[in-house]
Amino acid sequence: MEKTFSLRTNSHDQMVDITPKIQHWLLEQKINNGIVIVSSMHTTAGITVNENADPDVKTDFLRRLDEVYPWEHTKDLHMEGNTAAHLKTSTVGHAQMIILSKGRLMLGTWQGIYFCEFDGPRNRSYHVKVIEG
Amino acid sequence: MEKTFSLRTNSHDQMVDITPKIQHWLLEQKINNGIVIVSSMHTTAGITVNENADPDVKTDFLRRLDEVYPWEHTKDLHMEGNTAAHLKTSTVGHAQMIILSKGRLMLGTWQGIYFCEFDGPRNRSYHVKVIEG
Amino acid sequence: MEKTFSLRTNSHDQMVDITPKIQHWLLEQKINNGIVIVSSMHTTAGITVNENADPDVKTDFLRRLDEVYPWEHTKDLHMEGNTAAHLKTSTVGHAQMIILSKGRLMLGTWQGIYFCEFDGPRNRSYHVKVIEG
Repeated sequence: MEKTFSLRTNSHDQMVDITPKIQHWLLEQKINNGIVIVSSMHTTAGITVNENADPDVKTDFLRRLDEVYPWEHTKDLHMEGNTAAHLKTSTVGHAQMIILSKGRLMLGTWQGIYFCEFDGPRNRSYHVKVIEG
Repeated sequence: MEKTFSLRTNSHDQMVDITPKIQHWLLEQKINNGIVIVSSMHTTAGITVNENADPDVKTDFLRRLDEVYPWEHTKDLHMEGNTAAHLKTSTVGHAQMIILSKGRLMLGTWQGIYFCEFDGPRNRSYHVKVIEG
Repeated sequence: MEKTFSLRTNSHDQMVDITPKIQHWLLEQKINNGIVIVSSMHTTAGITVNENADPDVKTDFLRRLDEVYPWEHTKDLHMEGNTAAHLKTSTVGHAQMIILSKGRLMLGTWQGIYFCEFDGPRNRSYHVKVIEG
């Protein structure tokens, strides 16, 4: 069972909570146990699991990452100028896996799945697959 | 096959080697081949695979991460004040997967699985699942 | 289905594109659907998925990581002196998973799988496993 999802990001750096979309699709698959893999199809956008309650976490998160990997860097060679976005993607990861147990994602109370845009706004896609077991 | 493990951390930042507990549980499951997913149920504590020999690596690791993501930051908005812990968690990852081959975890000689506390001390839990295959 | 691959790195820091080797091996396995796990067997070398087009991205990537985690650090205790390599490994991750769909790796146009050497040159190995499903 697998599906490609599309989304449109609307900022340069943005964390989009994709948990509800994935949960909704999982319900339709009627799979009780296994693992779910969520994978970005891009090299300047990744996936992470982090806080879903206070939206300030996202603001702090993106600003702090930007301080660690500043957009402008005098030594960067890559002509597209988005080296920082490549680093942020490998730091959070291009993909994440979540355990599926008795029909529900084994996420803690405050955990959500985020699509992390680091070079937007753009049309993006991510692929979700379930392995039963 | 899956199990939730609990632990009590006793420092603000701490790497706890959970390899023996996972290996012991795996032996009881009598599964020879597959993958093992180890997932933190928190947004301020993650999982990583790293050196299990010299304990100084853990000390250096946590101090260096704290320099990259300092606890105090004048621009942070998140009222809980633990933005740094959220960043550290996404940097190491909320979960890791390890290959299971002929009944043993495919870890290199120096690799151990660590529960990484970034906002302790606290009561914590992580979930472990095996997919046969 | 699983296999251990060996490689010789030839720089201190190096990103080696291992996508072709993995794809070639996968073709021989004749598995259509599942997930592929690629895991470094070391604590100072990791795996990441990132840009496979402009080689400047690799140069920028490694230099930027070295700025975030400098090799020399007055406070480091670890006597081997490679604490930075341990941090880089946990930052990119010791392992990555890629979805396998209809016989091909579900990678975006610009995504490649990299073995990331952070303390070379050395003889290294990584383990690849496919779970069908």
